[in-house]
Amino acid sequence: MARGRDRRLTPSIMPDHCAEADLIEILRQTVRVTRDDVRLGVGDDAAVLAPPPGLDLAMATDTLVAGVHFPEATRAADVGWKSLAVNLSDLAAMGAEPAWMLLSLTLPEPDRDWVRDFAAGLGELAGRFGVALVGGDTTGGPLSVTLQATGFVEPGRVLRRDGARDGDGVYVTGTLGDAAAGLAIVRGNLAAGDASRALRDRLDRPTPRVAAGRALVGVASACIDLSDGLALDLGRILAASGRGARLALDDLPASQALRAAVPDPDRRRDFQLAGDDYELCFTASPRHHEELARIAADLGLAITCVGEITADAGMTLTEQGKPVPVTGSGWRHFGDGHA
Amino acid sequence: MARGRDRRLTPSIMPDHCAEADLIEILRQTVRVTRDDVRLGVGDDAAVLAPPPGLDLAMATDTLVAGVHFPEATRAADVGWKSLAVNLSDLAAMGAEPAWMLLSLTLPEPDRDWVRDFAAGLGELAGRFGVALVGGDTTGGPLSVTLQATGFVEPGRVLRRDGARDGDGVYVTGTLGDAAAGLAIVRGNLAAGDASRALRDRLDRPTPRVAAGRALVGVASACIDLSDGLALDLGRILAASGRGARLALDDLPASQALRAAVPDPDRRRDFQLAGDDYELCFTASPRHHEELARIAADLGLAITCVGEITADAGMTLTEQGKPVPVTGSGWRHFGDGHA
Repeated sequence: MARGRDRRLTPSIMPDHCAEADLIEILRQTVRVTRDDVRLGVGDDAAVLAPPPGLDLAMATDTLVAGVHFPEATRAADVGWKSLAVNLSDLAAMGAEPAWMLLSLTLPEPDRDWVRDFAAGLGELAGRFGVALVGGDTTGGPLSVTLQATGFVEPGRVLRRDGARDGDGVYVTGTLGDAAAGLAIVRGNLAAGDASRALRDRLDRPTPRVAAGRALVGVASACIDLSDGLALDLGRILAASGRGARLALDDLPASQALRAAVPDPDRRRDFQLAGDDYELCFTASPRHHEELARIAADLGLAITCVGEITADAGMTLTEQGKPVPVTGSGWRHFGDGHA
Repeated sequence: MARGRDRRLTPSIMPDHCAEADLIEILRQTVRVTRDDVRLGVGDDAAVLAPPPGLDLAMATDTLVAGVHFPEATRAADVGWKSLAVNLSDLAAMGAEPAWMLLSLTLPEPDRDWVRDFAAGLGELAGRFGVALVGGDTTGGPLSVTLQATGFVEPGRVLRRDGARDGDGVYVTGTLGDAAAGLAIVRGNLAAGDASRALRDRLDRPTPRVAAGRALVGVASACIDLSDGLALDLGRILAASGRGARLALDDLPASQALRAAVPDPDRRRDFQLAGDDYELCFTASPRHHEELARIAADLGLAITCVGEITADAGMTLTEQGKPVPVTGSGWRHFGDGHA
């Protein structure tokens, strides 16, 4: 790290502390959600919060590093949105109702304009789900954002990864592949024409499926959010549940935008398996089939059955009824399409 | 940021996900505190926790960036210790009892040895205070650690910054200046001989004053932890409380090690005002004087009166009874000693 960034330990500490107070004030004024259960918010050594009686807490945290989790050129407002979205997606995958967040923001420079835009994007999503910014930390260093989100869930009703049972269906919400296609567009590896905006939006501003997660409490037997790709993330459900799965790649749902931008089904499939969609993947007993149809209709959100849980460990992938080989070292197949 | 670090978005994602699971397993196995109120710990989309009935939650988060908040050469175990210590210090300053932590670890490489050492230091402090590691995130990028800690506190009894009243005494726990002297040693700006180890330890392994914070509930009128230095941090109490203070610099407590290493009182004072000591600074009514003496004796921890709260805003510093000038742009005086 450059010596020039070595700020807190240098003699002239005041300018940074002033800058920090200034940035925190921008964040506080821009992310304006208030909640009655926040007894003491931003501005003391810690936030003080009144948890609702009788509920458990679900707590998630995710770090986004510039150049690793989002392209360097991503707009500040989109970084703000996404830093909360990925955490709300984790809470959604537990069936939790989001409530509070703490933000740790590391910036190369105390750039007020950047922070104002970041806060606008963060605040837009926070407002949609009623999430209050209750505390955090701003520091100097290479750009990264760590957000911690807390939500509430009924004791014993949380959507875990380890509840999948033989014969359960494997489902996904929404459509898959838009985010990876959006990344390919950013990298100049895909020309998507009119569909570009829609695909980029899904990369930069994923929609956490909070309402779906809440609706799936008591219905889904296991649930995870799709951050790393369907095969990897479903693999985590299988590992935790001690089960296997058959997955029909032909059934993976694709958006109109993805179909238009990527007519070739093989290439499209690679995008669909690449992750970053922040849809939910869950399992449910066949007896819940009608309930799932009702939930999908209520939410206006597609819920698609893409496979089935098996007693045998391992994952069998099929395309047009034929098995697709999976290499021992990992799902090599999945990486080829979106470099 | 180097392209070589741009890992999650590259096609070959599997090795990193394997590495991440591996590092998380090292952390989980090394930081072994368990608690009955953790319903679901590391390994799902979010932790699930049962808050104690009738108590509020105190939530803090702090980021430590390599080269900014700790010297690059700091041992991994000390980084682990300190990343929790600074957060427990925040909870201590609220009078809260620590319970759970989430860890976000960003590493240039998935270095298992480094993580093992880091986890050992983190686990040592976590064990001392019964703090369970319940979740987190590991990512690739420039070395930094964000830790989020949650504790419990009785409703309405939290130690805030805004409760200082005219005539209250200003107190600090322990001694001041060792950490800044330790940093000067690391930087080659101080030769401390036999005292070096003790001073370095206070920089690398600060002791969060959790028991003192708990004991001060109902006694202190305002409290903050000393991360940025006495003048800056006391200034935050004064700003929040709408008060001023007289501070007697001659009364600042110094350790034997600091007295031995820095015989010159002027230079010693600069270290004492420089921060990173993670002692508590609090205010209390004179009627609590005997209670404070009892707390100090019970804890085996010095509690020193270093000043008094005044109705007039602003801070008056005195040395040997004479006022010390404070510049308009900040406490320039404080920065000179520890470059």
